Amino acid sequence: MNEAALVALLEGVRSGDLHPDDAMAQLRRLPFADLGFARVDHHRALRQGLPEAVYGPGKAPEHAAAIVGELLDGGASPVLLTRASPEQATAALAAHPDGRQQGTTVVWRPSAPRPERVVIAAAGTADLPVADECATVLTAFGIDPIRLTDVGVAGVHRLLGESDALASADAVVVVAGMEGALASLVGGLTPAPVVAVPTSVGYGASLEGVTALLAMLSSCAAGLTVVGIDNGYGAACAVLRMLK
Amino acid sequence: MNEAALVALLEGVRSGDLHPDDAMAQLRRLPFADLGFARVDHHRALRQGLPEAVYGPGKAPEHAAAIVGELLDGGASPVLLTRASPEQATAALAAHPDGRQQGTTVVWRPSAPRPERVVIAAAGTADLPVADECATVLTAFGIDPIRLTDVGVAGVHRLLGESDALASADAVVVVAGMEGALASLVGGLTPAPVVAVPTSVGYGASLEGVTALLAMLSSCAAGLTVVGIDNGYGAACAVLRMLK
Amino acid sequence: MNEAALVALLEGVRSGDLHPDDAMAQLRRLPFADLGFARVDHHRALRQGLPEAVYGPGKAPEHAAAIVGELLDGGASPVLLTRASPEQATAALAAHPDGRQQGTTVVWRPSAPRPERVVIAAAGTADLPVADECATVLTAFGIDPIRLTDVGVAGVHRLLGESDALASADAVVVVAGMEGALASLVGGLTPAPVVAVPTSVGYGASLEGVTALLAMLSSCAAGLTVVGIDNGYGAACAVLRMLK
Amino acid sequence: MNEAALVALLEGVRSGDLHPDDAMAQLRRLPFADLGFARVDHHRALRQGLPEAVYGPGKAPEHAAAIVGELLDGGASPVLLTRASPEQATAALAAHPDGRQQGTTVVWRPSAPRPERVVIAAAGTADLPVADECATVLTAFGIDPIRLTDVGVAGVHRLLGESDALASADAVVVVAGMEGALASLVGGLTPAPVVAVPTSVGYGASLEGVTALLAMLSSCAAGLTVVGIDNGYGAACAVLRMLK
Amino acid sequence: MNEAALVALLEGVRSGDLHPDDAMAQLRRLPFADLGFARVDHHRALRQGLPEAVYGPGKAPEHAAAIVGELLDGGASPVLLTRASPEQATAALAAHPDGRQQGTTVVWRPSAPRPERVVIAAAGTADLPVADECATVLTAFGIDPIRLTDVGVAGVHRLLGESDALASADAVVVVAGMEGALASLVGGLTPAPVVAVPTSVGYGASLEGVTALLAMLSSCAAGLTVVGIDNGYGAACAVLRMLK
Amino acid sequence: MNEAALVALLEGVRSGDLHPDDAMAQLRRLPFADLGFARVDHHRALRQGLPEAVYGPGKAPEHAAAIVGELLDGGASPVLLTRASPEQATAALAAHPDGRQQGTTVVWRPSAPRPERVVIAAAGTADLPVADECATVLTAFGIDPIRLTDVGVAGVHRLLGESDALASADAVVVVAGMEGALASLVGGLTPAPVVAVPTSVGYGASLEGVTALLAMLSSCAAGLTVVGIDNGYGAACAVLRMLK
Amino acid sequence: MNEAALVALLEGVRSGDLHPDDAMAQLRRLPFADLGFARVDHHRALRQGLPEAVYGPGKAPEHAAAIVGELLDGGASPVLLTRASPEQATAALAAHPDGRQQGTTVVWRPSAPRPERVVIAAAGTADLPVADECATVLTAFGIDPIRLTDVGVAGVHRLLGESDALASADAVVVVAGMEGALASLVGGLTPAPVVAVPTSVGYGASLEGVTALLAMLSSCAAGLTVVGIDNGYGAACAVLRMLK
Amino acid sequence: MNEAALVALLEGVRSGDLHPDDAMAQLRRLPFADLGFARVDHHRALRQGLPEAVYGPGKAPEHAAAIVGELLDGGASPVLLTRASPEQATAALAAHPDGRQQGTTVVWRPSAPRPERVVIAAAGTADLPVADECATVLTAFGIDPIRLTDVGVAGVHRLLGESDALASADAVVVVAGMEGALASLVGGLTPAPVVAVPTSVGYGASLEGVTALLAMLSSCAAGLTVVGIDNGYGAACAVLRMLK
Repeated sequence: MNEAALVALLEGVRSGDLHPDDAMAQLRRLPFADLGFARVDHHRALRQGLPEAVYGPGKAPEHAAAIVGELLDGGASPVLLTRASPEQATAALAAHPDGRQQGTTVVWRPSAPRPERVVIAAAGTADLPVADECATVLTAFGIDPIRLTDVGVAGVHRLLGESDALASADAVVVVAGMEGALASLVGGLTPAPVVAVPTSVGYGASLEGVTALLAMLSSCAAGLTVVGIDNGYGAACAVLRMLK
Repeated sequence: MNEAALVALLEGVRSGDLHPDDAMAQLRRLPFADLGFARVDHHRALRQGLPEAVYGPGKAPEHAAAIVGELLDGGASPVLLTRASPEQATAALAAHPDGRQQGTTVVWRPSAPRPERVVIAAAGTADLPVADECATVLTAFGIDPIRLTDVGVAGVHRLLGESDALASADAVVVVAGMEGALASLVGGLTPAPVVAVPTSVGYGASLEGVTALLAMLSSCAAGLTVVGIDNGYGAACAVLRMLK
Repeated sequence: MNEAALVALLEGVRSGDLHPDDAMAQLRRLPFADLGFARVDHHRALRQGLPEAVYGPGKAPEHAAAIVGELLDGGASPVLLTRASPEQATAALAAHPDGRQQGTTVVWRPSAPRPERVVIAAAGTADLPVADECATVLTAFGIDPIRLTDVGVAGVHRLLGESDALASADAVVVVAGMEGALASLVGGLTPAPVVAVPTSVGYGASLEGVTALLAMLSSCAAGLTVVGIDNGYGAACAVLRMLK
Repeated sequence: MNEAALVALLEGVRSGDLHPDDAMAQLRRLPFADLGFARVDHHRALRQGLPEAVYGPGKAPEHAAAIVGELLDGGASPVLLTRASPEQATAALAAHPDGRQQGTTVVWRPSAPRPERVVIAAAGTADLPVADECATVLTAFGIDPIRLTDVGVAGVHRLLGESDALASADAVVVVAGMEGALASLVGGLTPAPVVAVPTSVGYGASLEGVTALLAMLSSCAAGLTVVGIDNGYGAACAVLRMLK
Repeated sequence: MNEAALVALLEGVRSGDLHPDDAMAQLRRLPFADLGFARVDHHRALRQGLPEAVYGPGKAPEHAAAIVGELLDGGASPVLLTRASPEQATAALAAHPDGRQQGTTVVWRPSAPRPERVVIAAAGTADLPVADECATVLTAFGIDPIRLTDVGVAGVHRLLGESDALASADAVVVVAGMEGALASLVGGLTPAPVVAVPTSVGYGASLEGVTALLAMLSSCAAGLTVVGIDNGYGAACAVLRMLK
Repeated sequence: MNEAALVALLEGVRSGDLHPDDAMAQLRRLPFADLGFARVDHHRALRQGLPEAVYGPGKAPEHAAAIVGELLDGGASPVLLTRASPEQATAALAAHPDGRQQGTTVVWRPSAPRPERVVIAAAGTADLPVADECATVLTAFGIDPIRLTDVGVAGVHRLLGESDALASADAVVVVAGMEGALASLVGGLTPAPVVAVPTSVGYGASLEGVTALLAMLSSCAAGLTVVGIDNGYGAACAVLRMLK
Repeated sequence: MNEAALVALLEGVRSGDLHPDDAMAQLRRLPFADLGFARVDHHRALRQGLPEAVYGPGKAPEHAAAIVGELLDGGASPVLLTRASPEQATAALAAHPDGRQQGTTVVWRPSAPRPERVVIAAAGTADLPVADECATVLTAFGIDPIRLTDVGVAGVHRLLGESDALASADAVVVVAGMEGALASLVGGLTPAPVVAVPTSVGYGASLEGVTALLAMLSSCAAGLTVVGIDNGYGAACAVLRMLK
Repeated sequence: MNEAALVALLEGVRSGDLHPDDAMAQLRRLPFADLGFARVDHHRALRQGLPEAVYGPGKAPEHAAAIVGELLDGGASPVLLTRASPEQATAALAAHPDGRQQGTTVVWRPSAPRPERVVIAAAGTADLPVADECATVLTAFGIDPIRLTDVGVAGVHRLLGESDALASADAVVVVAGMEGALASLVGGLTPAPVVAVPTSVGYGASLEGVTALLAMLSSCAAGLTVVGIDNGYGAACAVLRMLK
């Protein structure tokens, strides 16, 4: 319901083509579908540049499947089911078999390929599930990310060997647990926007990701931004906003 | 010391124009100037797309002034002195009088204007110093930000009245203390990248910004990214990385 | 044992109708029944306007059932068993079959319908169990709440479409996890008392509800009040106190 | 801009009395006054039942005074300046001399007296400034609160002696620091809504009010609600919402 | 190895009855038995007035049983196995069948009855396991505690009805979770030493006992002391130290 | 108002010596004096075995002096003004010149000497102000404590040299900041009750006393009890309860 | 790729033996093997004095086995698989049968014995798994540690009996949970470097090792250093660095 | 009082040269001097390899001076006054003029030079006061540390240019605030023991050093050890223990 539509509506009222009561009704018509158990937001893609992904936890499998269906019916963008339980993924794929599952993410109607260069750098192998979630979401939107794995700072030459990839990226996602120092190091090696994702990987004093989160927010490398712990999905969305 | 320079160096060695010992010396020559009390990093602009800003706290006024001078000598980018004490600002401006102070930030050699549209939305009047720091840094790099002030969520129509500005922005910075809810709301109204800056403004249970920080990191609006508490400078740097 | 009763007792002593020892005994007689394993508080309804609900966790099923029985014997108000395990619910319903279970709450002897308009707004589908607990308790006391579901702030128009319901409510309960911003938004849209219930729903930096709790307590919307994490029962009791 | 006004506007367009462009302008006209440094929200009283109070901290004295002036011009409700510094209070009272200062609160245009019985119970003498802020706000809205002071739980008979006042109140505000136990005790002695205000009073392990805050949120007395630490203003607003 | 023994030893050396090497050996002989996997401390009863109880968690069942055996062999005091797993209890009782299990505590060789009056007041039924642990340890040392159960502050008359028991006690242990307010109330009703035991019982904002712990440490009732969360054993030991 | 008094009162009513209305008045007469700004609790000494000390912070000097006066008028026990500001101490001593100030504590009407042996062990010289507060309160009640200073665990022989004093004490107060290990060590060297007082002394990771507090609550020495940070007054009260 | 190698490379270029392109390739050749799922760092032993241990959690058993194989192929140092799940240990030992498992650590190719005296002091039997991990790593590098077990401070004579071992050690590792006081005590008894390992053992207020961690960092014994909670591996590595 | 001395003492008793009472007295004579307000520990140098430094905070200037004097009288090691206030330093230097002040540390009787190579790497100029404290203490013990300043990870080449110094060090101290990532990086570049000192430098989310502390404890570089926040003195002591 943008300004042009509002002008058109008012014009219709002025010209008599549209009765005020009908205009009223249109003004009241909200851009979402009420399924009873959920309000599916078809206009989110317009407003946010991202469709509504279906976040699995806490949803009944049949509800998850129904919301996916509503989203597939209502637009042309990719549809994602994230952090899906096996039951949710099964139910949603049974109802809508064109999807493709990767880890705990299911993607329907992926976008056509896009040329931007996004690097996802993961500090250790234990950080891979989070990096994978990020990569799957980016891929759903047409971006084929460059993956750097096992480039933690204790062996800094492993990362320095990838300086070119970092320096020429359009955006970089850093996925790291423990002390999260990789984000600072990467931030110093690239002019691209860097989205840091702390992970709950670690022990000793890593406090299930809080230490990495705080460290990334305190980074001495200017201009890093941070998303929540283990939030690979959010990092991908942040990158998509940047590349719009 | 990029790859091209390295190839040239090796060519010089091959051709005999450069003795291996001299090559060795060059390879050792690091891209910073050692002032004794600080190592000024002239290549940061190349590596990070941002020059090294001089962070005031903890520096002697004459050191702050000297580092500013070294940076002015060594490049062509804007030079910033941030969170400067009155003594630091006075000393640096006395030594380098072309700078311009705005709040606690001093800027020398600002960039030419750039056309990108960046919105800085501040929830309340108490958040303005942080928003100002962000705006000053952006302005130093040629961006004239659009300021929205006093648009906290308790009077949501104030923000909704600015939906167009948000929807058409290239990037949005949200500056908010207390519960930080403005970030979520803005995130739902724009497809642009949103950088959320929690501020230490608030009382009751705001814990000097920690509540807003946690809330912004937990936002239900996908793709928000967050910087540290009161870090207007960091948010500006993040935006500059995105607009590169 | 109110003041009138005390006066009557003293009168009885003065007139000789009541021996001082008997008066002493009456003064000692406390308004609860001691079941050995629990002291059932029959006067709570008088003192607090709410009967004693039986909080399930940590009670043996037969004890839970016995306390329910004692409460049913001792008064005329609704009796509730909350956060009941399946074993507790089964035992209590076997002993007192007139109850009705809804989620983990069992209700006996519900009140007659009352006309007040209470809105329960839940940010997401994962917040529904907490909203349900609140609704079940309200229903036990005769209030049929208006339910708004999936009205999180990232799609603010979903909530704005319900402004009338909020503006005309006698009380509003907001149930939200993650960053809990819905409470601030609702607080700005209604003059009614707003009870905010943080939930443990979320990830990233939601800290199992602590983030939403802190955010709600720091809300920029004046006059919100907050109950503990996931405490739908407490929110219902707060509303009942307000509508008395 | 309620629904009736919208219907009238559309009628005006239909009848030709109002040009669509003018209607557009009216639709855009937002219910606040933009002072440049602040957006004064004249409709808040309609939406929230409370006028916008001016929160002092962080505002220039002349700005505080100007916002007070704008609010006095724009409505008929009480106007409050809260947590005012001496400079702010002086500036605002100089510009608008009809106000009356009480502690750090200044009130203009107080409401006519109302009959509701609100009890403010403060645990100790050190809690009085917070209780005073609450009382001043209530008084501004016509409520003359009943004050109970120094009724901490370590001398429980002091509180029990006031049981009647508590039992017959329309609302109770409990102001307590340290372990905050007074809230639980009061909650058990009254059927009225109880708003608990933790204060930063205490030592040992009171963590500047966090302990009392957590304790009040964990209270064994059902239906208590809580506001932020030292937030006497918020508690008063909560009571005003309840008594509407 | 007290001073008298040392004097005797030195006398022996002087008189020639004891060779310096033998004296040296005796001086080196430490008052514990080294079982290889544990050092059993036979002198603890002398030094601390309490025998070494065997804390179950982390010990192999056969080790637990062996340490119990060593303690039974080495003294005449009660022997306790605390927080025993079923396997540990079974193994220890199989090896030393005279013990008696109560909850997760097993007691061997209990002391003769003692006359002191110790009250254990538990706020709710869910606090009973902690109160039971405390009671079992006291009983092992001959004290038959007076139990008050379900005397939480929301129904304060239940506690006031027991004022005499509290006022005449030699020591009081208060066991409470949630907001832990019972400790403050009891502290105001008795001149006896009060040991407060926070429990992990609760929800909302009780943080698994941390809230009750902080509240008890911040109590407005002077002279309360506190032990760790759920530490019924520690509270019993504290009482035993006091009654020595 | 004990049971005997209540029996007498009822007898008086029965015999006609006391009119029911007068009895009612007496029953209502609460055992405290209401000074308007404070309720002085004269019966606390009976109930808690301790008179009400006047806690200075937050009280006007003249109020502090008046409460001291009321307490001096109303009983025969020691009267204490604790954590007094210089202004409070001056005002109170001007009005009641018999008091004696020691640090921030002022004592009037001290008790006659008592024979119990109480040891106060302070880990370092920086802990002395807290130890002094404890000693002053004990002295006010007639106990002349044995002081051990600078007996931190890093030089354990300094403490071991005082083993006899510890072993023969009736109660021990341990005052320690930093890691608070002294409490555990002392707990292992004495059968007496040990009250541990964490202090805010320290640096590095001592978190203004929280580390010592947590450490003392987690002590491996059984039967330690703990009071709040820097609460020397509370520790003294705890000891007085124990020695009653 | 040390300086000597770089000089040789440059010499090769000068002499014509090495083409600049080949030199470039060598300069790019990084000292690790990329297995696709991990980058094995063969030079770590040179850089850090420690080979790369394989940290089990989060790795597929076949990946763990493959990385072990790569490390065995690429050097001559000990190879460790730490915190291995049974599946990982089985897979790695099946592929490389020369390893030896101890607890959750597997060691291949242990070093020859070294003479240094390292003491590992564990406060209680529950701390043994952490002490064992430390001992196993030290043993892999040829050091046969001296084990002191069950020497907690509550029975300080047990530790004092081992003063000689502590005083003559080359390094000491202290493993303790609960309040972690053992570290301070040991620090006062030895001139050797002391590495303190807090463990998650404890209850009451031990916060899963955080209390011991903070206490050790706040120790009054100068020159202690600390590693993360339960990090026996890290403590062993720290000792190995010190003994190099 | 080592074993040899004890044997000699016992021999003396046997031979009659020493009366048992005198032996008793000697056994009781503790190796410290009791100044009344402090117990000076002359044997600490023997036990810990470090003399007792005088920690300034909380000590009267004349006490600080007296303790310094006692230490100068009682041994031959360096004597330090740390974190001295100007008054303490003045008083101590007036009484003992041979000392030399550096920042807030004063050193008397420094040791002769020692050859070990210790690197102190500080991330930024604001970390210098902590690095200076560490350097001053090392210098007092004869070690002339190599200082690396302004080598934070955002400009990693500044650190890599110093790889040789790191690789050949006998010990490295890393001083860093903010996210503390420098420690991990250094840990990967040297086989020497690395002591990490978190500093309270930073903003955003550095929590006054807690973030750096947690990050250093969670480092992915094996074998780092950590001391408390801003504890340059402790780091120097740790290094001295290692180099013994």
